[in-house]
Amino acid sequence: MNINKRKHILTKAAELFRTQGYHATSLSQILKTTETQKGTIYHYFPQGKEQLAIEAIEQTGKIREDFIKYHFSIEEDIALAIYNQVIEMANSSIEILEAPPKESVNISLVSMSSEVWYSNDTLREACLKVYTDWQNLYYNQLVKKGFDKETSKALSITIQSMIEGAYVLSVTKKNLNPMKTIGDSIYKIIKNNNKE
Amino acid sequence: MNINKRKHILTKAAELFRTQGYHATSLSQILKTTETQKGTIYHYFPQGKEQLAIEAIEQTGKIREDFIKYHFSIEEDIALAIYNQVIEMANSSIEILEAPPKESVNISLVSMSSEVWYSNDTLREACLKVYTDWQNLYYNQLVKKGFDKETSKALSITIQSMIEGAYVLSVTKKNLNPMKTIGDSIYKIIKNNNKE
Repeated sequence: MNINKRKHILTKAAELFRTQGYHATSLSQILKTTETQKGTIYHYFPQGKEQLAIEAIEQTGKIREDFIKYHFSIEEDIALAIYNQVIEMANSSIEILEAPPKESVNISLVSMSSEVWYSNDTLREACLKVYTDWQNLYYNQLVKKGFDKETSKALSITIQSMIEGAYVLSVTKKNLNPMKTIGDSIYKIIKNNNKE
Repeated sequence: MNINKRKHILTKAAELFRTQGYHATSLSQILKTTETQKGTIYHYFPQGKEQLAIEAIEQTGKIREDFIKYHFSIEEDIALAIYNQVIEMANSSIEILEAPPKESVNISLVSMSSEVWYSNDTLREACLKVYTDWQNLYYNQLVKKGFDKETSKALSITIQSMIEGAYVLSVTKKNLNPMKTIGDSIYKIIKNNNKE
């Protein structure tokens, strides 16, 4: 198996999913973009487009997981650690808005999940698993920092909702102010909860 | 022009956009679902599927606008008024999750915008206009209730991000806890901002 060819196909498919969406991306467009024969795609990805989406979702999950863990490892103040994450996410989204994005299997989970939740249970479950993993990272760090379990659960869901919602507002507006605004809001919410 | 036929086509198309998404919905599926000839659709909607999407976006905007205004008119406490809105939105989303949704042109703006922002500027602009209208309603009410302009702007973006993000988390999880959680969070954020 040619690992580079496999990776190339997945990266290009993810780029199409990230920009156009899942349904707007046809297998034939993936074949054309990657200069691949149909048989070759099915050799590497026997379930075709759906499998490409599942792998993109999983790898997106892993990339963000490592990113969240990294920020928690370098910043003890949890409010600041999450603020830093959001601002870095906003800054790296500039690429998506203003320039051809770098080669990456990173897709937008909020776009993928809102497109497939009703029509494709396999992809919905894959998205759900990733959302849950991310939420658990926030939850566990909040508990570790002394927040009670109920507060930690509510905060982790709130943080996640803000990040996903602000991403969609940012790309729709074609500016990153919503991402930056919710970075501040998350910082304040965590600090205020600490005071209660 | 047969108003009922026109309305019937738009309602069914909106239902397909709401559940499957824009790109997964083909014109031929709209024709089949509404038992309509191609010529009839283009008679009512000369720009075809894109026009159906624009009208669904605009009517979704109008429905939510009236809904927000209504809640502001019956509840003086702005934190409670927005809390009530979110809980009512969550409860009405149960239909989407558990039963065939009632006939409505209401679509999910977060799904539509995250699907089209990159590929279709006409639809992106239509979504953006609606987001801006909703945001202005929150902003104006916050200013009216004595919040300063900067705080009102940040809060209106934060509220909107939470609502849109929590909706996607809720449909992906197939439960409405994220919507209910951010209802509480919005209430707290507004009350805490009042204290500052």
